[in-house]
Amino acid sequence: MLVLITYDVNTETNAGKARLRKVAKQCMNYGTRGQNSVFECILDNTQCVTLKAILSEIIDENVDSLRFYYLGNNFKNKVEHMGVERGIDVVDTLIF
Amino acid sequence: MLVLITYDVNTETNAGKARLRKVAKQCMNYGTRGQNSVFECILDNTQCVTLKAILSEIIDENVDSLRFYYLGNNFKNKVEHMGVERGIDVVDTLIF
Repeated sequence: MLVLITYDVNTETNAGKARLRKVAKQCMNYGTRGQNSVFECILDNTQCVTLKAILSEIIDENVDSLRFYYLGNNFKNKVEHMGVERGIDVVDTLIF
Repeated sequence: MLVLITYDVNTETNAGKARLRKVAKQCMNYGTRGQNSVFECILDNTQCVTLKAILSEIIDENVDSLRFYYLGNNFKNKVEHMGVERGIDVVDTLIF
């Protein structure tokens, strides 16, 4: 399924910047960076549970936040792009 | 329906910054700013067509981009939050 993950990590401190890098690294294991602060990840249920557990350990829940949007398996017609194209499209580049 | 709009507007120029403000203003008519670069909008089909037409006029399609993710009408169980709460939650604050 496609899971859109958006993040708002407080980067006022070096520790916050490090958390942001860690969040990005984990998400990049499962998808591509969409636009600013957005990852498009292709996950099965087990991967999703695992990734959420990892991310919950990384973030500081007092200052950071993540949001997960579940687009399901039939997501091609649920995503629309307008404007300049990105270099990588998760839908076309990942094999699943 | 819930439509998530993410944007990547090139703000290297003052014109770009103005476009970003215009995009944000239009999206705020229909929802709340989620995290960085993300809007959660509650739209019916007509509003969605209208908003997309307006946004396509605002952005510079050579340098900016928008993505629309359609979460449908039954979206409450398709959105999950982790970490610090935002001040406003579109799901609870809008009447539709």
